[in-house]
Amino acid sequence: MITTTNPRTGASSATDVRETTVAEVDDLAARAQAAVGPLERLGRDGRARLLDAVAESLEADREELVRVADEETGLGEKRLNGELSRAAFQFGLFAQALREGSYLEAAIDHAGETPLGPGPDLRRMLLPIGPVAVFGASNFPFAFSVAGGDTASALAAGCPVLLKAHDSHPLTSLRSYEAIARALSGTDGDGAPDGTIALVFGQDAAGRMVSHPHVRAVSFTGSLSTGKVLLDIVNRREDPIPFYGELSSLNPLVVTPGAAKARTDDIAQGLFASFTGSGGQLCTKPGMAFVPAGPDGDRVVDRLREMTETGSGHVLLNKRIADAFGAISTRLVDAGASVAARGPDPDADGFVVPPVLLTTEAADLTRELTEECFGPLVVVARYGDVKEVARAFEEMPPSLTATVHAEDDEADLVTELTRVLEPGVGRLVYNGYPTGVRVSWAQHHGGPWPSTNSQHTSVGTSAIRRFLRPFVWQSAPEAVLPEELRDGYTGIARRVDGVLVPAGAGAR
Amino acid sequence: MITTTNPRTGASSATDVRETTVAEVDDLAARAQAAVGPLERLGRDGRARLLDAVAESLEADREELVRVADEETGLGEKRLNGELSRAAFQFGLFAQALREGSYLEAAIDHAGETPLGPGPDLRRMLLPIGPVAVFGASNFPFAFSVAGGDTASALAAGCPVLLKAHDSHPLTSLRSYEAIARALSGTDGDGAPDGTIALVFGQDAAGRMVSHPHVRAVSFTGSLSTGKVLLDIVNRREDPIPFYGELSSLNPLVVTPGAAKARTDDIAQGLFASFTGSGGQLCTKPGMAFVPAGPDGDRVVDRLREMTETGSGHVLLNKRIADAFGAISTRLVDAGASVAARGPDPDADGFVVPPVLLTTEAADLTRELTEECFGPLVVVARYGDVKEVARAFEEMPPSLTATVHAEDDEADLVTELTRVLEPGVGRLVYNGYPTGVRVSWAQHHGGPWPSTNSQHTSVGTSAIRRFLRPFVWQSAPEAVLPEELRDGYTGIARRVDGVLVPAGAGAR
Repeated sequence: MITTTNPRTGASSATDVRETTVAEVDDLAARAQAAVGPLERLGRDGRARLLDAVAESLEADREELVRVADEETGLGEKRLNGELSRAAFQFGLFAQALREGSYLEAAIDHAGETPLGPGPDLRRMLLPIGPVAVFGASNFPFAFSVAGGDTASALAAGCPVLLKAHDSHPLTSLRSYEAIARALSGTDGDGAPDGTIALVFGQDAAGRMVSHPHVRAVSFTGSLSTGKVLLDIVNRREDPIPFYGELSSLNPLVVTPGAAKARTDDIAQGLFASFTGSGGQLCTKPGMAFVPAGPDGDRVVDRLREMTETGSGHVLLNKRIADAFGAISTRLVDAGASVAARGPDPDADGFVVPPVLLTTEAADLTRELTEECFGPLVVVARYGDVKEVARAFEEMPPSLTATVHAEDDEADLVTELTRVLEPGVGRLVYNGYPTGVRVSWAQHHGGPWPSTNSQHTSVGTSAIRRFLRPFVWQSAPEAVLPEELRDGYTGIARRVDGVLVPAGAGAR
Repeated sequence: MITTTNPRTGASSATDVRETTVAEVDDLAARAQAAVGPLERLGRDGRARLLDAVAESLEADREELVRVADEETGLGEKRLNGELSRAAFQFGLFAQALREGSYLEAAIDHAGETPLGPGPDLRRMLLPIGPVAVFGASNFPFAFSVAGGDTASALAAGCPVLLKAHDSHPLTSLRSYEAIARALSGTDGDGAPDGTIALVFGQDAAGRMVSHPHVRAVSFTGSLSTGKVLLDIVNRREDPIPFYGELSSLNPLVVTPGAAKARTDDIAQGLFASFTGSGGQLCTKPGMAFVPAGPDGDRVVDRLREMTETGSGHVLLNKRIADAFGAISTRLVDAGASVAARGPDPDADGFVVPPVLLTTEAADLTRELTEECFGPLVVVARYGDVKEVARAFEEMPPSLTATVHAEDDEADLVTELTRVLEPGVGRLVYNGYPTGVRVSWAQHHGGPWPSTNSQHTSVGTSAIRRFLRPFVWQSAPEAVLPEELRDGYTGIARRVDGVLVPAGAGAR
């Protein structure tokens, strides 16, 4: 049977959930495959309605969901209430994206003469890729798990979803699944087809999902090591499929001399909040901060030291993360970092650790000092010249984000840092913090390997594109075309004969 | 030294080109990496100007390029002139796409209150992914080789290109490279940066390109077996990169009973032209045709038989393809296909083969009978009921395209065939032929594995997206933003606060 563990106490208890067998996964995958056509034929409006219903269903179960998640993750009710709001918002946002319809990338080239001779009528749009395997993440029991953005974007795309519950929160996964399934069942026969969503538990089921011939894409947020295991399974398939992995990120933050001087306390407080928030278990946590040498930088570090020394303990999500926190802290010190401060030893059972502040010199930075550490730990690297930051950045693996804190009169420095940081990240933050990722149309969550392994995103509306494939109808009779590709349809923006035509305009 | 072979005679001769060493690839990759920033900073207009110059340069060298390519490929001057026009057109089309600018997917979410609290300013667009390795294809010495769509789309994206010359046309590759390099050198210092384009020869250089840390994507059009070798190299990299492979495609074509009766001769002639054109060496060649049982279908087959029996020999591109043509023909017969017709044995040296018409029963179709055969060969599968087509289609690997020939009064049958064929292809052609791929905005060239291994396309303007990655600036000072993301810029379509704003409209 599956057990659930309270990270505040370390105590485990049995649940009435058992591991899903490989044969059961095969059955669920067959049902998902059978749902592909019916789910697509629900259309954009039909699926938007279902997504709105999921958002409502999550809200209706808020109290129970947050209670269970708090017991399983120790993240606290405030954070979990915020995260559940985000999860519900994501379903609603994808409903909006469906109704807006640009995501289809509808395009029509009418038949006609071209510089290369007569061209046939072509009509292109994106279609659902097929059943998708989604892995829940430990650190977001709602927003990156069963009720997460991957589920929302896959369902929006029209793809049935096979969900792997994370071992750290099996009951939260189950309750989330139940809330979603209830909404998808609809009322009066207007629900999603059978097979649209399924939940599996256990490693064997996870492996089978990734290798199953019906599964057309895999979405995973988690550790680099587990990601590589799954990617190896994908690579051994007869037919490779997209693996959207979000794996590891150090998220360097650079404080310029001007910023260290002008906003000493603000930056120290903001950085402390960012590297300790949610127990430092966010994929966008700033794990390394570059602070200038000299008295202004010293004061930033002093403030960080004070906050760290008096900081309370943080509950980590599970024993594996807590053990790794200790082991990686030790490795970082062995690699040359100094322990500048460490919070009081927590007087608690369970997976509770103090905040830790390490320091080093940017000029001495090695690859070993750039190991990602989940948990409330930051490495502060002191630099004399911005060239040391550039060189250090070359030692560092790419990240989801980088951050620059600078003053208005440091424009040239900001330009230089932008140029240095841009190639190695997917998002560049100015005078803010990388945690607290906005869910919106212009967002992007991804970066060069190992932060992610594709150009795509797992936050924001463009996440939907991961689960779509282009399709072209050539010289097709109108009856077989989706309505979005018929002449005269004006409900969505389309590219017609190379020209972008907004919704509601230019019917032809 | 590299040799060149005339496929009409089989005679090889030495060239003054030698294989590129691994050390030379390393040097070229370093120069390509150094070109990334300068090429990006040329901007959309700067790169569009260069692409137009490449198109002009190819046109200026037309006579020599076609002459050399004809000697190396045997494809004939008419086809090669058409293909060179297409290659030049592709560079011009991507210049248009650059000036139009939608491909950047520019999006702005202004800072403001959101349902989840205050949201920061986010500005997203696509940036070049970095140096790209492009493999020339044997069957398109221009349009899918050094001067091909992959080169055009990668340069348009702002990515330096490392080109692998195909062994079948080394001199065409070299001459094409010279024409492109001359255009890129510009006049009066307005050219592309050093390192923007490089040409390599030989297997060792090819392998090194794919494994080189600076290379950020690989684009390959060729055989499934070579594609798998390259994909294995990609999978062994420390950092996996996108591999855009276009590998193998059978392109089934279905003739309905109504079409067989109404357009017997037209369909037989069209199919014959489509499976023998360019020696049957097109990735979209219809390799299998479903023709109804009964007298109308018999007449279609009879007409195909007549044309095949009197058809002239076709020069294949190289010895490997010619040998495989013989071997696969034999395997198809061993698997149960009957030789319905075969053209006269060619009275020529070199790699010349006759057209071949094989027949089988759709009800008996096995995986062995669906092997792709490059060259002028088609397998006609006779069917009694459309259910046999559906079942046979399940035996078949996915393809780039499928084609339906049907009459207006067969609407239900067309709907049924559309539903059967859609999941296994990327383009569905009605009452036409899959060869002769239109290069345009709405085109898509791709399909489920093994036809391609990604959702992306190697024909049409959306090919550019393969070489771009999303990037977000959060709360950035205007000075570091690309002009396309600044407030008030109206030169391209953008999504502003979730709303699509066409170019020239709605400045904010």
